[in-house]
Amino acid sequence: MTRKLKLVSFSLQTKRCAFSLTRPTSSSNHPRCRVSVLLYSDAQKQGCFLQCPRSKRVFPRRRSSAVLYRSVVAGDRSPGSGSMATSAESLLFRREIPAESPRIQLSVWQGVCSSTGMHDPRYGFQTLLQDHFFRIQRRKPLTVNNKPGCVYPDGSLCGSAPLAALVVNVQKGGCDGFPDLNSREDYKLSIVDGLGSLSAVSVWGALRGLETFSQLVYQDQEGTYYINKTDVVDFPRFPHRGLLLDTSRHYLPVRSILETLDAMAYNKFNVFHWHIVDDPSFPYQSPTFPNLSSKGAFHPQTHIYTMSDVKQVIEHARLWGIRVIPEFDTPGHTQSWGKGQPGLLTACYKGLVPSGTFGPVNPMLNTSYQFMSMLFNEISSVFPDSYLHLGGDEVNFACWKSNPDIQEFMKKMGFGTDYRKLESFYIENLVKIVTALNKNSLVWQEVFDNAVKLSASTVVEVWKGSCYHCELHRVTKAGQRAILASPWYLNLIGYGQDWTHYYTVDPLGFKERLIKMLKKLGVLKLQVLEARKLDLEIICLQKVPADTVVHVWKGNKEQYSQEMSNVTAGGFKVLLSAPWYLNVINYGQDWMEAYKVEPLGFNGTAEQKQLVMGGEACMWGEYVDATNLTPRLWPRAGAVGERLWSDEAQTSNLDTAYDRLAEFRCKLLRRGIRAQPLFVGYCDHEYERI
Amino acid sequence: MTRKLKLVSFSLQTKRCAFSLTRPTSSSNHPRCRVSVLLYSDAQKQGCFLQCPRSKRVFPRRRSSAVLYRSVVAGDRSPGSGSMATSAESLLFRREIPAESPRIQLSVWQGVCSSTGMHDPRYGFQTLLQDHFFRIQRRKPLTVNNKPGCVYPDGSLCGSAPLAALVVNVQKGGCDGFPDLNSREDYKLSIVDGLGSLSAVSVWGALRGLETFSQLVYQDQEGTYYINKTDVVDFPRFPHRGLLLDTSRHYLPVRSILETLDAMAYNKFNVFHWHIVDDPSFPYQSPTFPNLSSKGAFHPQTHIYTMSDVKQVIEHARLWGIRVIPEFDTPGHTQSWGKGQPGLLTACYKGLVPSGTFGPVNPMLNTSYQFMSMLFNEISSVFPDSYLHLGGDEVNFACWKSNPDIQEFMKKMGFGTDYRKLESFYIENLVKIVTALNKNSLVWQEVFDNAVKLSASTVVEVWKGSCYHCELHRVTKAGQRAILASPWYLNLIGYGQDWTHYYTVDPLGFKERLIKMLKKLGVLKLQVLEARKLDLEIICLQKVPADTVVHVWKGNKEQYSQEMSNVTAGGFKVLLSAPWYLNVINYGQDWMEAYKVEPLGFNGTAEQKQLVMGGEACMWGEYVDATNLTPRLWPRAGAVGERLWSDEAQTSNLDTAYDRLAEFRCKLLRRGIRAQPLFVGYCDHEYERI
Repeated sequence: MTRKLKLVSFSLQTKRCAFSLTRPTSSSNHPRCRVSVLLYSDAQKQGCFLQCPRSKRVFPRRRSSAVLYRSVVAGDRSPGSGSMATSAESLLFRREIPAESPRIQLSVWQGVCSSTGMHDPRYGFQTLLQDHFFRIQRRKPLTVNNKPGCVYPDGSLCGSAPLAALVVNVQKGGCDGFPDLNSREDYKLSIVDGLGSLSAVSVWGALRGLETFSQLVYQDQEGTYYINKTDVVDFPRFPHRGLLLDTSRHYLPVRSILETLDAMAYNKFNVFHWHIVDDPSFPYQSPTFPNLSSKGAFHPQTHIYTMSDVKQVIEHARLWGIRVIPEFDTPGHTQSWGKGQPGLLTACYKGLVPSGTFGPVNPMLNTSYQFMSMLFNEISSVFPDSYLHLGGDEVNFACWKSNPDIQEFMKKMGFGTDYRKLESFYIENLVKIVTALNKNSLVWQEVFDNAVKLSASTVVEVWKGSCYHCELHRVTKAGQRAILASPWYLNLIGYGQDWTHYYTVDPLGFKERLIKMLKKLGVLKLQVLEARKLDLEIICLQKVPADTVVHVWKGNKEQYSQEMSNVTAGGFKVLLSAPWYLNVINYGQDWMEAYKVEPLGFNGTAEQKQLVMGGEACMWGEYVDATNLTPRLWPRAGAVGERLWSDEAQTSNLDTAYDRLAEFRCKLLRRGIRAQPLFVGYCDHEYERI
Repeated sequence: MTRKLKLVSFSLQTKRCAFSLTRPTSSSNHPRCRVSVLLYSDAQKQGCFLQCPRSKRVFPRRRSSAVLYRSVVAGDRSPGSGSMATSAESLLFRREIPAESPRIQLSVWQGVCSSTGMHDPRYGFQTLLQDHFFRIQRRKPLTVNNKPGCVYPDGSLCGSAPLAALVVNVQKGGCDGFPDLNSREDYKLSIVDGLGSLSAVSVWGALRGLETFSQLVYQDQEGTYYINKTDVVDFPRFPHRGLLLDTSRHYLPVRSILETLDAMAYNKFNVFHWHIVDDPSFPYQSPTFPNLSSKGAFHPQTHIYTMSDVKQVIEHARLWGIRVIPEFDTPGHTQSWGKGQPGLLTACYKGLVPSGTFGPVNPMLNTSYQFMSMLFNEISSVFPDSYLHLGGDEVNFACWKSNPDIQEFMKKMGFGTDYRKLESFYIENLVKIVTALNKNSLVWQEVFDNAVKLSASTVVEVWKGSCYHCELHRVTKAGQRAILASPWYLNLIGYGQDWTHYYTVDPLGFKERLIKMLKKLGVLKLQVLEARKLDLEIICLQKVPADTVVHVWKGNKEQYSQEMSNVTAGGFKVLLSAPWYLNVINYGQDWMEAYKVEPLGFNGTAEQKQLVMGGEACMWGEYVDATNLTPRLWPRAGAVGERLWSDEAQTSNLDTAYDRLAEFRCKLLRRGIRAQPLFVGYCDHEYERI
């Protein structure tokens, strides 16, 4: 059982029509054979045929029904059929054959979405894989040929044969549903003796297998397409392989997004994290609150995503097996929201008078939550995925601090001067709203970091009396100098800028004793970290929605590794993005840094590592729009994609990765994706548009 | 007399058809007026007219002959002409009006290339400016409108009027020639009271003026095009404003090059430095030596520039007033040459046997020079510009050193072990060849640097007996410890890695004494630098073709400034590229670093600074091909373009430069150039292709 395909390499020496195919080494298990093809032209009475030098037999002897087959073996001519002339032409003008010309017979796809069989007319063409197929045929070089076969004297084939069909079997239906975090993406693909077979548990796995299939196809110098005999058993390493696009800092036309989805599928990404709104603009056109985009977008007509646009993106993604997770980032990053929703943002003060500027969402007003409730109600129905990204990053407290009403509210709530508690209050309410809508949450890590940027020796009282784990506080306080048990949903201990001073790694013995003790107390998820001088912080983690995913985006390798360790030790699912900010560019082969990242390279138990859902490549929009998005993303994001799909051992070598990525980049060019070069060199088919 | 246009800013508040135009400040010298336009629709019997509130007169009273004019002023209708319906439609659907729809009457261009007049039918349309015009009309938004005028009770116009014509006067002909280093590019442009006037000494200046004209046009929210009353007197700061493309490390399709030429013209660049061949590939298809590309190109058919391609590039450039300077870089950077020209490169040795690898061009063989003579003979006739770039950078001596025949030759020639002398020998021969072809030379600086990387205290004998300035040697040797007088054409003292230790700046008194002395001796160009411990190096500069330009590309600011100082002190023309390697990217607004460069910011006399021909932005091809060339070049190269065209005082402010560049980048998008964003924001018309 092979995880990744090992291609059997053949040296192909071709010249015009005639070519030969030899086995390069004796260690190959393919019988030695040699094949010639000569050109046949009806007009000039010259012939092109396929012959096995050992057997001297011309192959094939009967006319094949495979279109693919015919385009190679020009000798197979039925009088009057007319197919020969076409074949001869395609041999003569192979370079001119458009990549998208259909070569695989559609019939082989009829079995898709049935349980096992093919050729089942009941299922027709209206299935997801059919759509996939049509799209590939229209735009992608999924034209295929087996290696030209030859025949031994006994009539057996020399290891390979023209591909007659690719049979796709999917165990479960679900063609018309949406992919989710638990979707099965594993598949088996086998190509042998003229028959391709692709089987998967779900349609999403079949899509991944089709992608692999299309990438196994190669082309000789004459333009003929081949695929080698092969046997692939493949499955993803991580279930969440995401890519973030930011459509607020620059507006991205829908077609840019659709193209990105295409390229994501080619790279086996399965989550489009749509950072759809932010400070600079609000392009999402909300039916409930149309002013948000009419006032908050860069332009109210041309720089927006209508409901129809959004649905188009979601459906396009679905057809590639890609989830769409929208991010409506609050309470910070909301400057553009304020334009269409007066009163939503906190008025900042300069001394005793409003300064005219605004800060984060006003967390003390019921109207803020009513608004969020209505907006997220809409969002929940528009976006089918069970996850919503709530943002929560980079909340600046300065404006809140300046506002006398907020100061009053802080007093009333007993928050003292700790504005993290105010942020927690807001986020907690927002999570309640979203949970009530039956959605799970994704958040940026520092929602989190902010809540615990406390000196390790500070004793922090549980600030909300209703905390039902306050027992924890009392119990542990006796034995330790400090206990932190702040109540809201993500209060793990994170790192501050100074975390290396405070924490030592994994004080396991001590922790285990505590875990046992705390479990008795009903604490389900916890995080214990030994602080300097053995001060201890313990976090009470009630109210955590089971599926909340923490999105790690900050810090250097040491820092994000520690964060991954912390978050997973608390039992949370986690996503890694910190080392994959692809918007940040460096001169040279900067994909290599992204490739060297090991998402599980932190200290933690096997259980902890199970909680790593995957990662996301992020393309923030400060310097990116439709003009440069694609070359900046690809093939660099492909490096991330491979690390998230393939296993660690197979993705640890930069040299072999370079070769794969460089070749794959040429494939992307063939598919019309403006993927930039890795280094000096060329592709047979360069990007021709400008 | 204004160097650069100061646009008078107006606030335009428009809404569908009706709009008003007011003067924003009382300091403006435009009379206060207010204009309304209402929609006229033939079918609905509703009207759209232009009225001056003060005079109450509808403007214009008579039908204008200007197409531009008509498209704004819908009230101007001649019964039965049908033009009204068109006008009403264009008002209604202005957003849909393609940018390229012709609005300026062709007749205004008839005067182009005549001496003064317009409407001179003798000159027809077959002139360079006509071609330029046609191209703009076909592809660029050169549709124009004056601000809607209004009329006072006395009948005079309120400061602006619809533009009826743009008259172009060119003093000299030369429309069918090629631009050169001495071409006049200055022009005057005036737009006043409905008449545009553009005058220039040469057609090249007129082209620059047309470009300015097109950039003065702006568009209101309704899609109508305007140009303000204006008066421009403009001329370039530097005559050589180049951009280098590297078509060897990656092949660039011809259309990519043509598009780059377009964008260069928009940015007033006037030299395309075509680094056409290099180590990785030889895409230039030489009729004389077809094997160079058939063996040395990435692909012999698809990755080459045929003679027809090259001529297309040259002609396309000419129509924009852009010179094409090809670089055939030798003796290093020639790996790809060796494939099609066996024996050209030096065979490298490992011990006593050839290693199978090859080094720079073999400088000891007559065949090398015969080959170069034939090749450059061809190149000289293919490329019309009087300059050829000979390269000469980064010659690695290791292979020469390994080759026993070369060692023998070194001995025979008396070069000792100084391989710089061998390089000099080669370059000197090459320059002879090129000079005989009546071409001037451009070279990279280190041809130069290599020749003088000598410790300052070394006494170097003039190595060639025929040096007719050897008197210099004797004269100065008496008074100084060291004299360096190596003979070849660019032997200025350059800097090594250690130059800061060796040189102090501008020992003027001492130098002047020497200059006087040396001039008596017939030394025309010299370079004197005070070395550590007052050791002195003096360079004998005979055999320098008068127009040889030294191309400075290395070092940090301090280093390249010193180099500029050194080169110009020697009387050489110089080009700056060191700070403008645009292939090197950094995250963020890296155009700012390029913008801050001051080409004359080195220590030197006014005479020295006269020798700065300009500079070149370089886009080396390691990581760039057609997929990412354009967004990586633009608008970043525009920063260089502005520094090279406009004067220092007007280009010293990064903030105002940002505003200009950001707006200009939107103009580039309108013209179909995939220019990337500078920072967060948007353009009215985003890039829509993917």
